[in-house]
Amino acid sequence: MKLIVNEAGRFVPEKVNGVKQVPFKGVNKFKPRGNKAKPAIRSCADYPSNGNKLVKNLREALMRSGLKDGMTISTHHHLRNGDVITNILFDTIHEMGVKNIRWFPSASFPVHEYLIKYLEDGTIHHIEGSMNGPLGKYTTEGKMKGVGVLRSHGGRYQAVQDGEVHIDIAVIAAPTADNFGNANGVNGKSSSGLIGFSLVDSEYADNVIVVTDNLVSFPCVPWQIQGNNVDYVVKVETLGDASKIVSGTTEVTKSPDRLLIAEYVAQFIDEAGIMKNGFSFQAGSGGTNLAFVLYLKERMKAKGIKARFVRGGSTKYLVQLLEEGLTDYILDGQTFDLEGVRSMRENPNHVNTSPFTSYNFHGKGNFASIVDVAVLGATEVDVNYNANVVSHSDGYLLHGIGGWQNCLYSKCTILAVPSFRDRIPVIIDEVTTLCGPGELIDVIITERGIAINPLRKDLIKAMKNTQLPIKSIRKIRDEVEEICGAPNKPRLNKNKVVAVIKWVDGTLIDSVFQIK
Amino acid sequence: MKLIVNEAGRFVPEKVNGVKQVPFKGVNKFKPRGNKAKPAIRSCADYPSNGNKLVKNLREALMRSGLKDGMTISTHHHLRNGDVITNILFDTIHEMGVKNIRWFPSASFPVHEYLIKYLEDGTIHHIEGSMNGPLGKYTTEGKMKGVGVLRSHGGRYQAVQDGEVHIDIAVIAAPTADNFGNANGVNGKSSSGLIGFSLVDSEYADNVIVVTDNLVSFPCVPWQIQGNNVDYVVKVETLGDASKIVSGTTEVTKSPDRLLIAEYVAQFIDEAGIMKNGFSFQAGSGGTNLAFVLYLKERMKAKGIKARFVRGGSTKYLVQLLEEGLTDYILDGQTFDLEGVRSMRENPNHVNTSPFTSYNFHGKGNFASIVDVAVLGATEVDVNYNANVVSHSDGYLLHGIGGWQNCLYSKCTILAVPSFRDRIPVIIDEVTTLCGPGELIDVIITERGIAINPLRKDLIKAMKNTQLPIKSIRKIRDEVEEICGAPNKPRLNKNKVVAVIKWVDGTLIDSVFQIK
Repeated sequence: MKLIVNEAGRFVPEKVNGVKQVPFKGVNKFKPRGNKAKPAIRSCADYPSNGNKLVKNLREALMRSGLKDGMTISTHHHLRNGDVITNILFDTIHEMGVKNIRWFPSASFPVHEYLIKYLEDGTIHHIEGSMNGPLGKYTTEGKMKGVGVLRSHGGRYQAVQDGEVHIDIAVIAAPTADNFGNANGVNGKSSSGLIGFSLVDSEYADNVIVVTDNLVSFPCVPWQIQGNNVDYVVKVETLGDASKIVSGTTEVTKSPDRLLIAEYVAQFIDEAGIMKNGFSFQAGSGGTNLAFVLYLKERMKAKGIKARFVRGGSTKYLVQLLEEGLTDYILDGQTFDLEGVRSMRENPNHVNTSPFTSYNFHGKGNFASIVDVAVLGATEVDVNYNANVVSHSDGYLLHGIGGWQNCLYSKCTILAVPSFRDRIPVIIDEVTTLCGPGELIDVIITERGIAINPLRKDLIKAMKNTQLPIKSIRKIRDEVEEICGAPNKPRLNKNKVVAVIKWVDGTLIDSVFQIK
Repeated sequence: MKLIVNEAGRFVPEKVNGVKQVPFKGVNKFKPRGNKAKPAIRSCADYPSNGNKLVKNLREALMRSGLKDGMTISTHHHLRNGDVITNILFDTIHEMGVKNIRWFPSASFPVHEYLIKYLEDGTIHHIEGSMNGPLGKYTTEGKMKGVGVLRSHGGRYQAVQDGEVHIDIAVIAAPTADNFGNANGVNGKSSSGLIGFSLVDSEYADNVIVVTDNLVSFPCVPWQIQGNNVDYVVKVETLGDASKIVSGTTEVTKSPDRLLIAEYVAQFIDEAGIMKNGFSFQAGSGGTNLAFVLYLKERMKAKGIKARFVRGGSTKYLVQLLEEGLTDYILDGQTFDLEGVRSMRENPNHVNTSPFTSYNFHGKGNFASIVDVAVLGATEVDVNYNANVVSHSDGYLLHGIGGWQNCLYSKCTILAVPSFRDRIPVIIDEVTTLCGPGELIDVIITERGIAINPLRKDLIKAMKNTQLPIKSIRKIRDEVEEICGAPNKPRLNKNKVVAVIKWVDGTLIDSVFQIK
């Protein structure tokens, strides 16, 4: 495997799974050429005129889709750790004797540890998609036949749209659907809010199979996925374990350090002048982020300030903002709890979005760069403001990218992180895996200090008179090293790339190496 | 111009405006090959990162779009006869000295008579789109430089999707939009309900310009058109004359003959067993159709029957069905009156659809064939059940096709027509222009009798014991001829095709010839 150095100074392979790659060129430097993928033209004459696309079972749908060795099959993480369909899907593929599948999930979860046997026996060749937990560990240990490819939510849309990934068969688990294939995630016993991660699959895949445990009469309204793009519909007893599909119990952190970070974040946004009428923000689902929303809410109420929109993943805390009139809209990419699902179902101002609207970098703009401030996490941040979200300092690939890379394009990106975790420094000299270039990361907020990227002179000026503990990032790094000692470098086989990290434009920003 | 005979026995040109054509092959006989159009890949790096795509005026937007001679420019008929933007658009193009534009409207209206001067001076080369009134007359007189091309709503989607028509610049008049280009038709002083006819343009055109007279802060919700597909936004004082955009006064017919037809239609649907719980129907906007809805409603109420969905164009009469709980949903392609607009804005069960979901024949199915019964009009019907909607018996092309061809795919298609109009027979030997093949037309309902297509043995059997005046279509034709005399054939120059009629699959079903 020949490695080259990209513009970020990182080693990336020339080819991945036999396909030539473009190394990262710098932020906004790579200009795509050519045209979008062009799906085959279909005819209504070849589909049931009464609209009924129901087939007996998943096996029949796969057979009719022409399943064969080496195909690319996509799934989605709307059911999160409650998903049973993906495991059943690969049981079926295995029973049919088909091999060397490229599995293209929007993300995999611990429940998919079950699929390791199919990686072992050659049913699955490799995974392109986020690997949360066991599959990531398996990959880092160098056991997967092919090289993993990690993309952001927007990067996944871009890759399919641009024809970089051609999906042969998309399998969309839909909490509600009609027999024409119209489908949504807001209704049904397995409701998860929305199923927008499968949008690009429905638009571009050769064969689209909708699997549902809640079949309703045509029309299934709303149709987040349009039946006009669907080939087959399969009815099953259950999509999975509803209690694990949405947690229902996403709670704020109780850690005093994390609460302090959250308070700092809210104060920073207020004092920097970002929190003003009509502003917008995005917050993730971690405990710190939830707490920050509560602190910001108090400040908004105290000053009589209303947001124009907030971006989900939504939780009950965002829903409260909407219901209390503190924001006009929630623009939501995924609902993280039951209150989020309910609100999306009932409230027309809780709007479902997709990776296309929000994050696709190869469109005529997207929502991410319109957001005033995004508060995100990271596993590691280095003194050049570069950040990592996929691997730990021990080298293990354990998380997906999600929308993280895409959100870096917000007008102000804040990483809210503890300065160390379990006595392992978070603020370090150089990230193990580069996921986000420092020039897009504006502020690092830790419990022991806040570092503003020197590129953001405007923010430095705005915070000149703050009481917040503004420090240089190197100072924070030094303090952490004093407490934890200098961190150990992971023992990696730098000759063996086990996975690559794509930037939002499809170029390679970094590699994940085999653990020795 | 070389003419060939198609499968319907009609003369159609081999080439239209220099492009080779496929003659009509029969219903469901033409199988498309190849792939959909593939728009160029764009990059967010080339669009304003704050999302603001506002430019000074239409001229600047056209300049930035690279307007030049021979381009294809699209517009849409959401503003109907109240539209002023299209005329201003061509004034601007004319001022810029650009010639030979192919104008690709979803429909033109009498207000666009103003554009005849641009057809005369070479600014516009020809029109592809419905021509209601003056432009149709102009075309039939052989005055247009190129050949007009008429497509159904679904056919327009299909043609762009399939790459048959490449749009260089789409100009979308949007009653509400934000500066990112998200747009809808339900809000604003020029609200017209929805703007779905421009969907395909937004998806496939090289340059997309949104013009609005109601600019709102991002996000414009709902976004019927997605800003991610939009290049430029232009703010204007007014899109047009609101009183002509939606009539507000669509009323049922007062003609005793038409009321009788409407009553027959309702009775037929009831007695044929179509009107049952969970059924669906579509009705157009004509006075007879509105009356039929009222009669059907009485029958539904009397029998305690509820529809699953009804298809618009919506009017207050359909809205009443929804609000009185007589249907679960209105699936709406365009709102014909103010009540329709209000309902679509307020009621989540009044769902906006698009030519893609409803009518595109080159998709994986569409809604049209799922509808239990469609009640439509026609200018002429012949003894073989063939029908015409675009021209009159004098040969003049005066109407567009709308969704009419697409709706013929419903499970039961009823044409509700008077047997003659102004002493000119409607039921005749052979239609002047063939728009719909008889095999898709099931029932003809006139004030003097009802004819069931012999192909529909099931309907004939179901109606065996009815009191309705079932007759053969030839009998109705004979009766009409007795009253009106044999109709005059129009005096046509059969060597000069002035416009062609596309079938839903893009093939040529008939030609319109120059009036002598």
